[in-house]
Amino acid sequence: MFAPLQNDSFLRACLRQPTPHTPMWLMRQAGRYLPEYRATRMKAGNSFMGLATNVGYATEVTLQPLDRYALDAAILFSDILTVPDAMGLGLSFGAGEGPKFAKPVQDEAAVNALAVPDMDKLRYVFDAVTSIRKALHGRVPLIGFSGSPWTLACYMVEGGSSDDYRKVKTMLYSRPDLMHRILTVNADAVAVYLNTQIDAGAQAVMIFDSWGGVLADGAFQEFSLAYTKRVLAQLKREKDGQRIPAIVFTKGGGPWLQEIADAGSDVVGLDWTVNLAQARAQVGGQVALQGNLDPNVLFAPPAAIQAEAIKVLDAFGRPQRADGGWDGHIFNLGHGISQHTPPEHVTALVEAVHRHSRTLREPA
Amino acid sequence: MFAPLQNDSFLRACLRQPTPHTPMWLMRQAGRYLPEYRATRMKAGNSFMGLATNVGYATEVTLQPLDRYALDAAILFSDILTVPDAMGLGLSFGAGEGPKFAKPVQDEAAVNALAVPDMDKLRYVFDAVTSIRKALHGRVPLIGFSGSPWTLACYMVEGGSSDDYRKVKTMLYSRPDLMHRILTVNADAVAVYLNTQIDAGAQAVMIFDSWGGVLADGAFQEFSLAYTKRVLAQLKREKDGQRIPAIVFTKGGGPWLQEIADAGSDVVGLDWTVNLAQARAQVGGQVALQGNLDPNVLFAPPAAIQAEAIKVLDAFGRPQRADGGWDGHIFNLGHGISQHTPPEHVTALVEAVHRHSRTLREPA
Repeated sequence: MFAPLQNDSFLRACLRQPTPHTPMWLMRQAGRYLPEYRATRMKAGNSFMGLATNVGYATEVTLQPLDRYALDAAILFSDILTVPDAMGLGLSFGAGEGPKFAKPVQDEAAVNALAVPDMDKLRYVFDAVTSIRKALHGRVPLIGFSGSPWTLACYMVEGGSSDDYRKVKTMLYSRPDLMHRILTVNADAVAVYLNTQIDAGAQAVMIFDSWGGVLADGAFQEFSLAYTKRVLAQLKREKDGQRIPAIVFTKGGGPWLQEIADAGSDVVGLDWTVNLAQARAQVGGQVALQGNLDPNVLFAPPAAIQAEAIKVLDAFGRPQRADGGWDGHIFNLGHGISQHTPPEHVTALVEAVHRHSRTLREPA
Repeated sequence: MFAPLQNDSFLRACLRQPTPHTPMWLMRQAGRYLPEYRATRMKAGNSFMGLATNVGYATEVTLQPLDRYALDAAILFSDILTVPDAMGLGLSFGAGEGPKFAKPVQDEAAVNALAVPDMDKLRYVFDAVTSIRKALHGRVPLIGFSGSPWTLACYMVEGGSSDDYRKVKTMLYSRPDLMHRILTVNADAVAVYLNTQIDAGAQAVMIFDSWGGVLADGAFQEFSLAYTKRVLAQLKREKDGQRIPAIVFTKGGGPWLQEIADAGSDVVGLDWTVNLAQARAQVGGQVALQGNLDPNVLFAPPAAIQAEAIKVLDAFGRPQRADGGWDGHIFNLGHGISQHTPPEHVTALVEAVHRHSRTLREPA
């Protein structure tokens, strides 16, 4: 059904297998910093969900960064909030604003009404996965994704973005029973959502715990990580004899690196506050690591970008260990690329990562 | 000149000396959640700087939370941005908005024009310190404070609050020479500012590195911690035979706990992402620890607040070690108290901290 994979460096690094260079992709690589993305978005009525729900447009924008840059993976163009939207909460994006839910989940009745949505309501996502996978013709693997149960709950309870998470934390501390019920439904919904993406053609899946890092120690383990584990335990990890790597990214998750690595994913994503050398020493024998350049580095001139990229690669070090085995590093930013990034700066970054990471593999 | 201190539990805990209970205060304890604060602010034309620059009003609001709650320390009512304002950048607070600088520091000429300001421009701060210290009549000690060099630089370059720190990080990565010059001036200004607060009557000083945690590993050490150290190295640490404890609080500083503890302060402030038991095991023999309840806990009912407060106290554990010596814990929030906090919830918190921490000290 799909063309054979030509560049498997991303999948190999996820599984801690040898690669000729450090594979890289960028969170939010199909996005507003690219003029061709903005052009496609205008065709879709300048609407984010207009892009995401149209299989042709979603395919087009997913492939745009691959045509410009020698990236080693593609990621489905979609939003982390498609699942609660399919639960009937009414997702919308105001002009220049963040996401909003028409029916936030703020009382016991609303919590009790939640259920794992019919995946037919998310057919547009799965159709996009299959369409993108076909359009890739095996150039690079395709990553599917979802928000984590906790991160979805933040938006569902707050009704949109928040700078203090007051409503969701008030529920968490006042009615932990309600919070656990939301998270259970979310985890089961995310698991079936990701499994259906895998069935549709996703070759790896990533769980974005964008707001795990706002939780207190203790609360993170109970209300975020436990439900990420519940997703991981239900995921299909193999398809057609091929391992489907699972990546967990917790923004601000540095304090809990060991516990996150123990949760059962193949790869742990790291933000830029994490010392990559220490992280590898601690958990690099268990999981591959993805990250972790500060996206703001891309505002500096190319020479500075290249110097900072080399620092990240050198912090991880030679992927081949002294014992001959390999640890896995996938180069990425520590968060999504900014819409204000000059596109030619990404060219400099990709070139530096591929060049220097080949040098790192040369015999000493 | 000042009345003798009646409750020295805060200062003793800072210096890791025995105390009968765990002392506590709350970041932003004099603030909008208190109706009496809002009343005083109306008298000052509903203006934050109107309060901060008027010695009478600043004294009045500093003492308000002490009249309601059995807190163990007072903190000067002021803003972290007084120093760059005195540098001539033109600080203002729009209605319902964050701080704004009329003249942000965004090019080489603006950087070169920066200098340590004449402390006479900050006379209103030092006069407030002396006035508050007198008004306290020795009830509890008075903490002075400043923003850290890096945190001040964030506001100075961005011109106000930011959600991505794009301008300041662009300068950092593009023109590190300019960033180092800003930070050097800031560090020297903060040192003389805090020393003048000490001369005016402050009995401890706190450096708020509110935005240290947005920096990448490596950049944090070079652009934030190095300049916090530069401040600490210049601080008066003793006055009239009494040690003046210095507290360093880095929001999001968990990944760098050891390095922050090594920087030379007496106390390290922790946000709620940090595991307090692990932090004590790691650095509790070097520094006292301050924190670290999530301020959002205060939206839960009193029983839940008390349970969470006990968790924090128990995480630190008995301050007296098995060898008979003492480690220091000052109970606090992990960030400023929210303006939406019900005042009676703070009563429940203070009661729980004092009661349970006395229990913790009973012989086993």
